Amino acid sequence: MKFAAQLGRAVEKNNSLLCVGLDVDLSRLPRRFLAESDPIFLFNKYVIDATKDFVCAYKPNSAFYEMYGIYGLASLIKTIDYLRETAGVPVILDAKRGDVGHSSEAYAKAAFETLKADAVTVNPYLGHDSVQPFLDYQEKGVFVLCLTSNAGNKDFQAPGCGEPLYLTVARHVKEWNHWGNCGLVVGATRPEELKAVVKIAGEMPLLIPGIGAQGGDLKKSVKYGGRRAIINASRSVLYAKEPAAEAKKLRDEINQWRS
Amino acid sequence: MKFAAQLGRAVEKNNSLLCVGLDVDLSRLPRRFLAESDPIFLFNKYVIDATKDFVCAYKPNSAFYEMYGIYGLASLIKTIDYLRETAGVPVILDAKRGDVGHSSEAYAKAAFETLKADAVTVNPYLGHDSVQPFLDYQEKGVFVLCLTSNAGNKDFQAPGCGEPLYLTVARHVKEWNHWGNCGLVVGATRPEELKAVVKIAGEMPLLIPGIGAQGGDLKKSVKYGGRRAIINASRSVLYAKEPAAEAKKLRDEINQWRS
Repeated sequence: MKFAAQLGRAVEKNNSLLCVGLDVDLSRLPRRFLAESDPIFLFNKYVIDATKDFVCAYKPNSAFYEMYGIYGLASLIKTIDYLRETAGVPVILDAKRGDVGHSSEAYAKAAFETLKADAVTVNPYLGHDSVQPFLDYQEKGVFVLCLTSNAGNKDFQAPGCGEPLYLTVARHVKEWNHWGNCGLVVGATRPEELKAVVKIAGEMPLLIPGIGAQGGDLKKSVKYGGRRAIINASRSVLYAKEPAAEAKKLRDEINQWRS
Repeated sequence: MKFAAQLGRAVEKNNSLLCVGLDVDLSRLPRRFLAESDPIFLFNKYVIDATKDFVCAYKPNSAFYEMYGIYGLASLIKTIDYLRETAGVPVILDAKRGDVGHSSEAYAKAAFETLKADAVTVNPYLGHDSVQPFLDYQEKGVFVLCLTSNAGNKDFQAPGCGEPLYLTVARHVKEWNHWGNCGLVVGATRPEELKAVVKIAGEMPLLIPGIGAQGGDLKKSVKYGGRRAIINASRSVLYAKEPAAEAKKLRDEINQWRS
């Protein structure tokens, strides 16, 4: 099944636009997990079991697994396998990859074949031929960074004379969307700019991080993001006293503003 | 020792500006390696043993290891360990990473602590706070993508009204160079643009890929790159009948144009 259909089905099944980021930091895990042989996986399993009826996707960020070397990679593989077996919602690997053609082919293979992710985030800086190897997996989803949620987004994405770069990126990605498998990453921290991206994006799904710890505007993000937006939360759900209750609350809060 | 000093020492020791990219593709390995239990590492060892007196650095590209999952990551770790033990030249991990602050911290940890690379390549798209966690490792080198060697460099890096983005990136990176550990990646395929970057870069080292398979101009890259340029070759050395002879030849060819 194509990623867009898979995502659509998950949105409908759980009546949810919430994506939970699985960005595990060992130093923040409750002590009981640290006594286990694979604390990262077991913590993820605990979060997944608690939240899987309230989300439309999960998004493990590769950085937090790479940090722990082979051990971390093994936990990531186990987590994605577990998600595929039990959660019934797509897995977006947040990897922000991008390289010259044949290296991007290797990255695409790593994400889609080795790790078996359903979608991946990629960085547009190297241009079309760096993204194409990902797009060539027609059944998979590709979220291209457009306007990120961090303070540094002003350095290159937003300023400039004429059209700001993030809009140029959005326009190009729309042209690259030959197989209907492109999406855009747009942070929740600049809702007015989000509005401008949505105008260009049309039917492309938007992955919106930056609510919670980063202080993005949830209400505006949902309102402006329109029906193709999915909202990511990581730490606010992972480290909640009750991840299930927190995920349900967030899902319902998002639904209140869906149009 | 700081990366710049370490690199300078290697340049002097081997009288070389040549960096060899260790981008191993199992499908291109001579058959005798495929019979072994760790063909990637053994092939790298063979290339390293043959070329280590003719280079100033090695540059494994993470993509080609990630493609093979845990097995590939183990080969990468073994390769970097072997380089540190025997080659006496720095290891630049070509990873092109970049993420929002706390995720970039995890990537920096992965590159510098877990994998023990001496330098890393990073992507500037997310701006200053995405690069800072790498820069905070004052002894390590950070090469920021500026103008890449692929065709897609025209999509976002080169055009635009006013100053092209790759020059804006170069200017910003110069400002970020508080610890003297920044460098720039500038492809050999656009030598005139390289000239413009060098004017801005000053004392920052330049990592120049794109000669060989990608058709970059070696002579102009060396001439324009100035004394802080290092020239990367991957496939042309790796898959040469005699990697030692090819590396020596390339080194000498480069030296002929050094000023």
